[in-house]
Amino acid sequence: MSSDTVKLGDYLFTRLLQLGVTDMFGVPGDYNLRLLDYVVPAGLHWVGNCNELNAAYAADGYARIKGLSALVTTFGVGELSAANGIAGANAERAPVVHIVGTPPRQLQSTRALMHHTFADGEYRRFSAMAVHITAAQINLTDTTTAPERIDWIIQQALIHQRPVYLEIPDDLPDLFVSSANLKTPIRVPLVPSPPHEPKVISRILDRLYSAQRPFILVDGESRSLGILDELDALIQKTSWPTWTTVFGKGLVNESLPNVYGLYAASFGDKPAQEYFESADLILTFGPHYSDTNSYFWTTVPKDAVAITFRDDTIQIESDTYRDISAGSILAQVLQSLDTTRITKATGPSKVEVTTNDIKDTDIIAQNNFYRLVNPIFRENDIVLAETGTASYGGRFFKLPPNVRFFSAVTWLSIGYMLPATLGAALAKRDQNKATGSSSQTVLVIGDGSLQMTAQELSVMIKENLNILIIIINNEGYTIERVIHGRKQPYNDVPFWRHTQALSYFGANEDQIASSVFTARTCGELQEVLNNERVHSGTGLRLVEVAMEREDVQGPLLYLLNKQIAEEQAAASN
Amino acid sequence: MSSDTVKLGDYLFTRLLQLGVTDMFGVPGDYNLRLLDYVVPAGLHWVGNCNELNAAYAADGYARIKGLSALVTTFGVGELSAANGIAGANAERAPVVHIVGTPPRQLQSTRALMHHTFADGEYRRFSAMAVHITAAQINLTDTTTAPERIDWIIQQALIHQRPVYLEIPDDLPDLFVSSANLKTPIRVPLVPSPPHEPKVISRILDRLYSAQRPFILVDGESRSLGILDELDALIQKTSWPTWTTVFGKGLVNESLPNVYGLYAASFGDKPAQEYFESADLILTFGPHYSDTNSYFWTTVPKDAVAITFRDDTIQIESDTYRDISAGSILAQVLQSLDTTRITKATGPSKVEVTTNDIKDTDIIAQNNFYRLVNPIFRENDIVLAETGTASYGGRFFKLPPNVRFFSAVTWLSIGYMLPATLGAALAKRDQNKATGSSSQTVLVIGDGSLQMTAQELSVMIKENLNILIIIINNEGYTIERVIHGRKQPYNDVPFWRHTQALSYFGANEDQIASSVFTARTCGELQEVLNNERVHSGTGLRLVEVAMEREDVQGPLLYLLNKQIAEEQAAASN
Repeated sequence: MSSDTVKLGDYLFTRLLQLGVTDMFGVPGDYNLRLLDYVVPAGLHWVGNCNELNAAYAADGYARIKGLSALVTTFGVGELSAANGIAGANAERAPVVHIVGTPPRQLQSTRALMHHTFADGEYRRFSAMAVHITAAQINLTDTTTAPERIDWIIQQALIHQRPVYLEIPDDLPDLFVSSANLKTPIRVPLVPSPPHEPKVISRILDRLYSAQRPFILVDGESRSLGILDELDALIQKTSWPTWTTVFGKGLVNESLPNVYGLYAASFGDKPAQEYFESADLILTFGPHYSDTNSYFWTTVPKDAVAITFRDDTIQIESDTYRDISAGSILAQVLQSLDTTRITKATGPSKVEVTTNDIKDTDIIAQNNFYRLVNPIFRENDIVLAETGTASYGGRFFKLPPNVRFFSAVTWLSIGYMLPATLGAALAKRDQNKATGSSSQTVLVIGDGSLQMTAQELSVMIKENLNILIIIINNEGYTIERVIHGRKQPYNDVPFWRHTQALSYFGANEDQIASSVFTARTCGELQEVLNNERVHSGTGLRLVEVAMEREDVQGPLLYLLNKQIAEEQAAASN
Repeated sequence: MSSDTVKLGDYLFTRLLQLGVTDMFGVPGDYNLRLLDYVVPAGLHWVGNCNELNAAYAADGYARIKGLSALVTTFGVGELSAANGIAGANAERAPVVHIVGTPPRQLQSTRALMHHTFADGEYRRFSAMAVHITAAQINLTDTTTAPERIDWIIQQALIHQRPVYLEIPDDLPDLFVSSANLKTPIRVPLVPSPPHEPKVISRILDRLYSAQRPFILVDGESRSLGILDELDALIQKTSWPTWTTVFGKGLVNESLPNVYGLYAASFGDKPAQEYFESADLILTFGPHYSDTNSYFWTTVPKDAVAITFRDDTIQIESDTYRDISAGSILAQVLQSLDTTRITKATGPSKVEVTTNDIKDTDIIAQNNFYRLVNPIFRENDIVLAETGTASYGGRFFKLPPNVRFFSAVTWLSIGYMLPATLGAALAKRDQNKATGSSSQTVLVIGDGSLQMTAQELSVMIKENLNILIIIINNEGYTIERVIHGRKQPYNDVPFWRHTQALSYFGANEDQIASSVFTARTCGELQEVLNNERVHSGTGLRLVEVAMEREDVQGPLLYLLNKQIAEEQAAASN
């Protein structure tokens, strides 16, 4: 064997490590065990998840922080359990390499009636399913083409910023492949400068110079566009009023004086809405126009005032320019921009958030909880607010600099946020190693969501991650109650003793004694939040707060009131 | 509105109830809430599961006992989480109606960028995925055709004995549809008698009369063939030596003197294997030839001696007869059979199982555990042995009459068995209501599998089902260890305190105090098993037993020894 070869398993994980993937998610299964032999020797950390859906969710969270992630599952049973998590990564643009260990080639080509199949000799069903939820798919078949095809599939994840699907038959990981490519890192190809580039730049500059009421709106696909540094420069250079969507939250520095936080149209501040409606230029970056991320499309600017930077186009008014790089254009605009020629837009007044009206004896409620929690966030933290009431409240947090934020965007799969917390915290831990900084990851989650994926708490404990989880116990799926069936038992969930989670899931006695808290009143919550173990502790800590079953705000309150009005109308007929 | 109409939601659940589906599994989501309004009013019990995979597993378990089941999930996020469970039902033939609540028709037809989609207006991706794992699919589009299409899809589940997929847009459940069909129950159409029927019957009778060393082998698809009563008659009428496969176990009365239990070729009793090899007639019913169910196809009879009853064919030697009903042929054969003309086959001697060699001070091990547990099973119980060591041991249990058994067959998705236990126990509870009998459901499960779907314990508690769970704590995925990587950390799982499960998952104080047991030695285990709360108690009870990390038997021991030999060979090179 010549020296320029390497075993396939080693090749794959080395490639991922080169791109910053230092942690590998997944679950062992008999068709992936030989592949797993290469994870740790290649220099990666193996994170064994409790099940594959949790692994996919965790990989998604990790990818959103580090720019790429991977999980390993086994053929059929494993990969299908992960499907919902992979689809979510596709919907919200997390580049996840889903590696599936499949039966050895010999068994597949002879159509053997193996377990983890329908015992009918058909091996291509599950890959056919993956086509619908991933950006690209590869089934490795031989050692000659394997390196190039591995490189290609990883590159597709980076280009499309979506999950990809890679099948590796169980007899391949131990075989030798060429290591030649390893010397050249995998990169995203540059978009060639198109002939219309100068025109696009000059049109954008003209609009920047002529704008009198400019509005910067940062949406979540700015992350996958890779333009966060450029956006930061634009926001600071122009000092123009800036908002984000839910998906964009945490991608800009909210401590800057011209950054307002979330733009929520009629569900947010009135002055912001008036400013939006009267804006003559709305610069929109990485738009993601689902009903939930756009308050039923009320945050989408009109074409006449919009310049919109997407991954495949830049749109100026009603003209769409293709084959053009948002990052490159934005960089060139910033370089050319003469700030003496742009307006000093002051924007609307900021609404100050205080906690002065909250009394210690108040019960904890949606309208006080988030304001009380907000001060514990520190620079460099990660904050996650699970789909449900937590998301509708958490999106109004004021975040310190460099705090990343996860919330309900489009996929809205409840259960996602707890494993995503695990993934994000692991990504952050690795980043912190390089920077020497410390931080914690804070999850706010309802009791209904928690039950979906609770077992992953044990992996957080095993990994000894600095995670604070605040459980909103409102006895069921409150978000579903307010949408429909507010008194229906189908929106209830089983009763759990949440404060016993750390003990059940294997924390040591010291940690249990110092890491579990409850609160029913605002005074109790304040005391818990003042505890050093809560705001600056290590390991997994858990706070359970009680809220009312129908306590909601924002669009959820609108839905609840609509439902109550319908009930009253029905009752009076 | 005329009196011969009914709301669509009511129609659907009434149809399911007519077929014995009294319990509905699933998870609420905003596209299925209006449909869920009809579950309880139609007379069904709503079982809210902790997540959709667990719901699918539970529905599978229920269908195997009652012959049909259903679950309700929501578009995208819910249905994809259930995919692995649905695929398992397809692989092992459980007729499950997977009902998916989808966005209202108006949103779909306008390609609105809704949540639970990829925000690109495409609504047909997930149904395209379902095609690969279900026998039939329907998307309801209007009230005119809805009743007929609902009937059709349910009928397909019954005909194919596999899962089916039914999409119901959220604006349809409240609309009126014709109730005319409700008067006529949904039935499986009869297979018309083909011209070759008399020939098939006479060939079978000839072979029965000429056989000198007959062997009856009942495999698991006998359940979906609906021939269990006929098989019981055949086994009693002939008194011929009878075995089952793993999949077939629990489908025949193992207390009959001519029933031997599991046929495991070289992994079972030597005399049975010799008898199989020398048999001149092997009657095989409902064969299911995966590697795992057939000990790598060593239990498959040779064509020359075989008569095989499948759902679509009857095979006699190398002749295949199609368009023929196994049940009808078997009934006619039984009617014609002159038992004075068949051989009195005695079969090999039975190997007696005793516990005499087990000492109280012995540690609990695979080679003593199952023999100690076996006596607690009673007529009418359900016994489940999860994939892993539990399956390899549990399949040799000697079952009392009318005890159904679940184990690893083909899909082998670890995590399945715990929610399947919930489903099976619910099905049994409903059956017991009719018969007045009592029974319990006993699950033997490893700690690795348990972690996959543990939250469903809380639903068992909420439903107050009579379930005994014995957790084999061998510190990880022992079955994976013996396949490959026996010392690899990727086969470890996080440490949990299993004895706290009842408390964490919401059992009341009395139940907790009387329902949690542990054992490390055989003496301790015997004492636990003698406890009335364990062998005849009510509610959920839990026994944790400790076993060694590499304690295995049967084919698993073969794999372990092979791995050790390879390690030694590698070390000595």
